[in-house]
Amino acid sequence: MRIGLLTGGGDCPGLNAAIRAVVKQGLGEYGHSIIGFRNGWKGVADGDVHPLGRSDIRNVLPVGGTLLGTARFHPHSEDGGLEAVVSTLEAERIDALVCIGGDGTVHAASKVAEAGVPMIAIPKTIDNDVVGTDLSIGFHTAVNIATEAIDRLHTTAESHNRVMVVEVMGRHAGWIAVNAGIAGGAEVVLAPEEPFEIERVVRYLQHRHRAHASFSIVVVAEGAVPAEASSMEFTQRLGPFGEIVAGSVGEAVAGEIARRTGFDTRLTVLGHVQRGGTPTPTDRILGSRFGVAAVDAAVAGRTSVMTALHGDEVRLVPFDEVAGKVKHVPAELLRVAATLA
Amino acid sequence: MRIGLLTGGGDCPGLNAAIRAVVKQGLGEYGHSIIGFRNGWKGVADGDVHPLGRSDIRNVLPVGGTLLGTARFHPHSEDGGLEAVVSTLEAERIDALVCIGGDGTVHAASKVAEAGVPMIAIPKTIDNDVVGTDLSIGFHTAVNIATEAIDRLHTTAESHNRVMVVEVMGRHAGWIAVNAGIAGGAEVVLAPEEPFEIERVVRYLQHRHRAHASFSIVVVAEGAVPAEASSMEFTQRLGPFGEIVAGSVGEAVAGEIARRTGFDTRLTVLGHVQRGGTPTPTDRILGSRFGVAAVDAAVAGRTSVMTALHGDEVRLVPFDEVAGKVKHVPAELLRVAATLA
Amino acid sequence: MRIGLLTGGGDCPGLNAAIRAVVKQGLGEYGHSIIGFRNGWKGVADGDVHPLGRSDIRNVLPVGGTLLGTARFHPHSEDGGLEAVVSTLEAERIDALVCIGGDGTVHAASKVAEAGVPMIAIPKTIDNDVVGTDLSIGFHTAVNIATEAIDRLHTTAESHNRVMVVEVMGRHAGWIAVNAGIAGGAEVVLAPEEPFEIERVVRYLQHRHRAHASFSIVVVAEGAVPAEASSMEFTQRLGPFGEIVAGSVGEAVAGEIARRTGFDTRLTVLGHVQRGGTPTPTDRILGSRFGVAAVDAAVAGRTSVMTALHGDEVRLVPFDEVAGKVKHVPAELLRVAATLA
Amino acid sequence: MRIGLLTGGGDCPGLNAAIRAVVKQGLGEYGHSIIGFRNGWKGVADGDVHPLGRSDIRNVLPVGGTLLGTARFHPHSEDGGLEAVVSTLEAERIDALVCIGGDGTVHAASKVAEAGVPMIAIPKTIDNDVVGTDLSIGFHTAVNIATEAIDRLHTTAESHNRVMVVEVMGRHAGWIAVNAGIAGGAEVVLAPEEPFEIERVVRYLQHRHRAHASFSIVVVAEGAVPAEASSMEFTQRLGPFGEIVAGSVGEAVAGEIARRTGFDTRLTVLGHVQRGGTPTPTDRILGSRFGVAAVDAAVAGRTSVMTALHGDEVRLVPFDEVAGKVKHVPAELLRVAATLA
Repeated sequence: MRIGLLTGGGDCPGLNAAIRAVVKQGLGEYGHSIIGFRNGWKGVADGDVHPLGRSDIRNVLPVGGTLLGTARFHPHSEDGGLEAVVSTLEAERIDALVCIGGDGTVHAASKVAEAGVPMIAIPKTIDNDVVGTDLSIGFHTAVNIATEAIDRLHTTAESHNRVMVVEVMGRHAGWIAVNAGIAGGAEVVLAPEEPFEIERVVRYLQHRHRAHASFSIVVVAEGAVPAEASSMEFTQRLGPFGEIVAGSVGEAVAGEIARRTGFDTRLTVLGHVQRGGTPTPTDRILGSRFGVAAVDAAVAGRTSVMTALHGDEVRLVPFDEVAGKVKHVPAELLRVAATLA
Repeated sequence: MRIGLLTGGGDCPGLNAAIRAVVKQGLGEYGHSIIGFRNGWKGVADGDVHPLGRSDIRNVLPVGGTLLGTARFHPHSEDGGLEAVVSTLEAERIDALVCIGGDGTVHAASKVAEAGVPMIAIPKTIDNDVVGTDLSIGFHTAVNIATEAIDRLHTTAESHNRVMVVEVMGRHAGWIAVNAGIAGGAEVVLAPEEPFEIERVVRYLQHRHRAHASFSIVVVAEGAVPAEASSMEFTQRLGPFGEIVAGSVGEAVAGEIARRTGFDTRLTVLGHVQRGGTPTPTDRILGSRFGVAAVDAAVAGRTSVMTALHGDEVRLVPFDEVAGKVKHVPAELLRVAATLA
Repeated sequence: MRIGLLTGGGDCPGLNAAIRAVVKQGLGEYGHSIIGFRNGWKGVADGDVHPLGRSDIRNVLPVGGTLLGTARFHPHSEDGGLEAVVSTLEAERIDALVCIGGDGTVHAASKVAEAGVPMIAIPKTIDNDVVGTDLSIGFHTAVNIATEAIDRLHTTAESHNRVMVVEVMGRHAGWIAVNAGIAGGAEVVLAPEEPFEIERVVRYLQHRHRAHASFSIVVVAEGAVPAEASSMEFTQRLGPFGEIVAGSVGEAVAGEIARRTGFDTRLTVLGHVQRGGTPTPTDRILGSRFGVAAVDAAVAGRTSVMTALHGDEVRLVPFDEVAGKVKHVPAELLRVAATLA
Repeated sequence: MRIGLLTGGGDCPGLNAAIRAVVKQGLGEYGHSIIGFRNGWKGVADGDVHPLGRSDIRNVLPVGGTLLGTARFHPHSEDGGLEAVVSTLEAERIDALVCIGGDGTVHAASKVAEAGVPMIAIPKTIDNDVVGTDLSIGFHTAVNIATEAIDRLHTTAESHNRVMVVEVMGRHAGWIAVNAGIAGGAEVVLAPEEPFEIERVVRYLQHRHRAHASFSIVVVAEGAVPAEASSMEFTQRLGPFGEIVAGSVGEAVAGEIARRTGFDTRLTVLGHVQRGGTPTPTDRILGSRFGVAAVDAAVAGRTSVMTALHGDEVRLVPFDEVAGKVKHVPAELLRVAATLA
């Protein structure tokens, strides 16, 4: 068999573990060929082919990023995109295509599958919002990085009697915010799942600081939204190309807290460090298991499926149970974050 | 309510997170009293009581070990042990007792429950061999530590053309060995689940080094056992009290590889570092969720149950589904370890 | 003897190691009393006294921040500040006062010394710009944190063909930027020691990306300044109290690169995480040695001196060799940063 | 110029940083050729040549070990060794040879220099016992690893009322033991610099545990030696080839403590993990500076010198001030370790 492989969407730690597993399982266990494509779907459309051998995957297990590169490119949204993809896959005689990506990549995969290509997806996203699987590659490392940052802010907040606001990633779901918030012992966690009232946050902090505490940590997911009732001011500034850029929700929350409480308040926006660097063992294992499972699926002729973790087991989930949905943080976990504050 | 709390068995990272959650949830959410006992069941038998307040749990989230101390003491195996335990619990008017522990602690808990005490267990063991839950507290941190050690040995093995044998914990199940082996990219993983033939290990290493490689990492669980067919020599030495101590299986495996291949072979026994230090975010979150769930169970009158993680959810599992069993590494995971070598 | 102790200025990792050493050496070795003051010079002025015993310093060695708290307060700049400080010290019968702090604290110490108080200073500042010592407490940990962040940005920059701009601390000297830049393998390092021309930075990046590379890391110290010739636009925005805040130099550099090259450019401002969390072993050892040396100095009657590291040795340096100066990055180190790009 | 390069002796983190700097500085700054030799002096004797270009050093900065490989081989101790080395260097028209290594490598370098070869040495050894320089490559990372292990053992010792004995590297000098002991807050540190009396160690631990403590950490350098007066039993066992192997000093110390005090005592031998894995920023910077300085020295015609760190500066030190000596831990540092116990 000739198995194609690409990584799409934003990069994250653990992608190389999955690539390595696909290559090792494909080559070693079955003697198949693994044909990589550079820079995601764009590389398939452009015919940017990179056959993968053992030397390509040497020492990549602990390395973040993706050796295949990635790009945000959706074949079904580009003129002639799907046709170019199918044409490359035919020219390269690809029997099955494994794509490692998030929401958008799985959606693209389902479109390409409709065009007759046998597709298998491996979920990755630091946001962890892909449905059908307990974990997606990259999320676990992001939580570790965010927790480490909160740990660090904790000691400096305490020494200076400060409110520290930390903005973490999570556009549609608050997985990183809630998990890192619990792990870091944050006092307040704001997630997209529950619109927040800034006035309640402020009152809670005032109460806490009156009662006993001299510092607080507030974790804000970038996708957290104020409830209608609350009035918050978002800052504005000029972006690099002269465009007006609205400040982030973290900026707004920090500003409101400073204004309304007078507490010494500081903002840290974690940004891109959350998606880089050495993957945690969990992400390396997850990538490895998903890579092996994807090749097994290809060999078994199982297609239009995504690899998934269910408890201790790796399973295959059909695309149509996955695509277009968002996995939200369950109520129990939100409650733990709230009651341990 | 007056809720008792103890930590039993070997210590591990994440226990303080669970203690903190029990205290915060008990005190803050419900206004109950949390009565800690020092040094596990021994402290209950001895009436070594330590009521827990907010100041006891300040800053303990990232700290390994257990602020309550622990001891290996089984009330049902000691003369008058059970009676002493019940008598203390009556004297302290304990309405429910939460015990955080492994196999042995859960077994003791079921015996104490039979004596009429409302019991709730929280599973912890770096071996991860408690059935009924995806994860036990402490395991995740141990895998991280073992993986980090393997990463380190990797670079030095490669620079010196060596075989590095690493012995990790895992008496009855190979969870640490298999997970850290996959995450660290080990060439051979020996786990209790599959008795190994040393001659096959040796032949594989010889083949690998002839073919292309100049180094190898072999991960051995302390409970790995040679298959009958294989003949291995275990070393012997005098222990601290003059007693004869058999060398570990790691020592025997390293010795056999050195003898049979002539390769420069070194042994590292990870030992106690695997159960110490700052818990990973995963263990902090797990401890936090289990602590909250245990108090909720006590308040709801659910007893003779253990908190458990099933995929994304925390559930309660009855003691009789748990006690006396060992959770083994599933075949799929063993296979990933084997095929990615 | 009664030895006073305070921590002043911004907090940083390693302060607790120094406090612990002062207490252990003072109490244990000599049987003296150690009188802590809360929140820096403010606590001395206010008489906010906290006598320190063994239980105060238990387990603080690996903990960031300062158990004494700190504040930015300069007694000589406040009305009646010096008098209040001297009066508290007399009331508490302090024989010598050990102050742990940066530039400002040492300056304050020299003023208080002029008022007749025996003073010993211990240098701390993550900026490492105190003259007379190879290292100040906190700097080493900050370099580690900044390097780890650059390592993480490296893999994501590479996967996405991006220019990553990282702004690190360093108002008057570029120690963190230069060291973390070298350690992280940054392509460009901008430090206050050498005003930069943005057009040269841009041309270098364009040359590099044309030649062979697809990504670059640019490290900018917060105190880096553009040379007169260059024209850079600094952004502006509204701060939390409605005031106009100029964007940072990192923001300006990222904006100019994006505008002038068209490369996908992202900014990360590390901020407060650089001064928090567990100190590195180096900062713990430095704090420990300085703490012991400060008490030895007090006992020996050496005053108006600062503890200092010279190579392998700890020495005492007179205040007047230190106060009011800035230690800059030496030319050799700047050159290593430039030529390894 | 054609500059030769080798890494000799045991491997350690930071070697690749030095290799990278030699290549970047040699190629980029001067346009010279860098000729690597594989596996230390052995590769020179065998003519195992590996010309180094930019692609060889890509991404190696954070990677432990040495991309050139290493071996323990001393040309002057092998029959015809020196002649083979000189002959290869002539055949390859090497103008200057940079060797990165410890004591033995520098000694070999001085012998090769006597044969007329322009030599420059870069010091590396995790033992840090090379004289003439504050730091050697690899030491700093080893201290970090040992400290992290002690941190981990701390929490488990405390939870179980145990004495934890940790054996670290350091054959002739106790740099790792003393530094990691201070950083980890060890109660006892045994270093080669001061022969120890086991009975005094035992009495100190008994006193400590009677007074207030319930646990202790004892750090032992592998080269620590008992004073004559003390009688210690060293264990014996069969090694992999049937030879009798004496137990380590750590084993003996742990055995004596267990026997004489009855305390629950455990031994951890850190072993090879101390010399592997990602180098700390300090080791990356040190390697980078030394690599640049070595090339500058070669270009300037400075030979028979070793690069060295003196405080903030990198200097060149003549071989004859270095060879055959051991740098011991200074008395002040030993005293800090002792008084902070």
